[in-house]
Amino acid sequence: MKRQIAELGEDKVVRRIIKSLPAAANLRVGPGDDCAVVGKTGDRSWQLLKTDCVIESVHFTRDADPKRVGWKALCRAISDIAAMGGTPAFALVTIALPRDLALSWLDGFYAGIRRAARRYGVAIAGGETARTPGPIFINVALTGEVEPRHCVLRSGGKPGDAIYVTGRLGGSLAGRHLDFTPRLTEASWLVRNFLPHAMMDLSDGLGTDLPRLAEASSCGFQFDRKAIPRNTGRSTDQAIGDGEDYELLLAVDPSLQTRLERAWRRKFPRLPLTCVGELIQPSRTRKPNTVRGFDHFAPAQ
Amino acid sequence: MKRQIAELGEDKVVRRIIKSLPAAANLRVGPGDDCAVVGKTGDRSWQLLKTDCVIESVHFTRDADPKRVGWKALCRAISDIAAMGGTPAFALVTIALPRDLALSWLDGFYAGIRRAARRYGVAIAGGETARTPGPIFINVALTGEVEPRHCVLRSGGKPGDAIYVTGRLGGSLAGRHLDFTPRLTEASWLVRNFLPHAMMDLSDGLGTDLPRLAEASSCGFQFDRKAIPRNTGRSTDQAIGDGEDYELLLAVDPSLQTRLERAWRRKFPRLPLTCVGELIQPSRTRKPNTVRGFDHFAPAQ
Repeated sequence: MKRQIAELGEDKVVRRIIKSLPAAANLRVGPGDDCAVVGKTGDRSWQLLKTDCVIESVHFTRDADPKRVGWKALCRAISDIAAMGGTPAFALVTIALPRDLALSWLDGFYAGIRRAARRYGVAIAGGETARTPGPIFINVALTGEVEPRHCVLRSGGKPGDAIYVTGRLGGSLAGRHLDFTPRLTEASWLVRNFLPHAMMDLSDGLGTDLPRLAEASSCGFQFDRKAIPRNTGRSTDQAIGDGEDYELLLAVDPSLQTRLERAWRRKFPRLPLTCVGELIQPSRTRKPNTVRGFDHFAPAQ
Repeated sequence: MKRQIAELGEDKVVRRIIKSLPAAANLRVGPGDDCAVVGKTGDRSWQLLKTDCVIESVHFTRDADPKRVGWKALCRAISDIAAMGGTPAFALVTIALPRDLALSWLDGFYAGIRRAARRYGVAIAGGETARTPGPIFINVALTGEVEPRHCVLRSGGKPGDAIYVTGRLGGSLAGRHLDFTPRLTEASWLVRNFLPHAMMDLSDGLGTDLPRLAEASSCGFQFDRKAIPRNTGRSTDQAIGDGEDYELLLAVDPSLQTRLERAWRRKFPRLPLTCVGELIQPSRTRKPNTVRGFDHFAPAQ
């Protein structure tokens, strides 16, 4: 019998794709991190490259405010550039539209794109429109810049590193997934002042993304369920599994913890920064929980 | 009554989007040309940025060889980089997959992507996979490099310029649209030896793309129907209207014609380069024909 996409989890699908791709000159980081990194040793800055899509009835519904959909489409990619320690630059927006879509939807969508672009200093460099017989499909490709010494990967974590998350987690589907704040200012401050060993943004939920960061860093991890910062009215399971938080997940040298926490409270008094666990030697890993984050290809439950 | 996307043609939809976008520093060419161009005066090279999508049942069918779909997805974007006089560099591939898709399809698709990447010197820098309840959706974002003096836009044509097309047109849907050759070598040779005033690739058909080039150049145009080079068994109407030829359309200073034609025959003996008309003063434009090229949003006929 033929194997189908749904039988493999998302990570396995991605690994299957990555395995077959050849390496390339100047490509410092290829598929598998939040962004690709292009540049040479000695360059003053490296380029970050990111592509990301949102699909009607997967990431938003037709009745959602198109302005918020536009905001989300661009801010998801900005969040990935931020998580590498970078600054976003130029965006290309592809949008595939059903023929019966109202023109006002398109206008609203671009109003949201423009709003996010202005807020975070992104220039819309180009795009592509097509019709589709299926759901509305949006792809955003985004370039960014990062100073080599500020470039943070998923893979730099070390056993003993303290694991932090920004903000509060869980319940994003109630609406926050459409107007979250990408942590660009916070990430930029972090890499300049407390260079994390590893960092990524939380898109699929702590329960999926923490194991990814740990694995990329060849570490295990342990974490304290009770420590996880939850949004009002959300359970710990929701905070671990809901996804689309777009908060930062970072691994920091334990010697920096006290200074980091104090400086953060002064700089960002309204946004919590919470230590939720630590990276450990790989053999001692235990699965965080039966609760999993979002997996695009997991069998329906 | 609400206006729908289908009421506006593709060009009007794009114009509506472009109008509302702010200008940006270093963005030399924004939406509306084959690629965006980023760079500063005095830079040794500028960056080209392109995004392009192919959608199941619009650009290919499920029963098409996935290897050829992968080839097409990447080569469409390469064709746009070529048409600016540039060289492709890094690609980001987004693919949205239905749950019931066979894994062998994904493997075949990436085999096609790799083949095109190797052939044209493209590095796959990253990507994104998602599931979709709709048709297979693929987006390719591609960066490229171009020497400033070799960068050719759509908008540089002048009245009196000779209009040329490479290759033969029409009938691409019979299969060639899945394994066409992007004219990277030819475009690179052209910009180095006979710098065209304007150039673009033919994706929507001569009947749609020639008026676009003329309009971007603030020119009218006239052309000779009988001169249009046709693929075997194709009518002139098909050569004008079918689309997906991925040949080059260029406007050349008339003083270069004799030398260009002779040098081309020596360099590319197996690929025709045909003069099909000329750019003229804008007031004298006449519509090429009632036959139109492909318009993504035109009402169904």
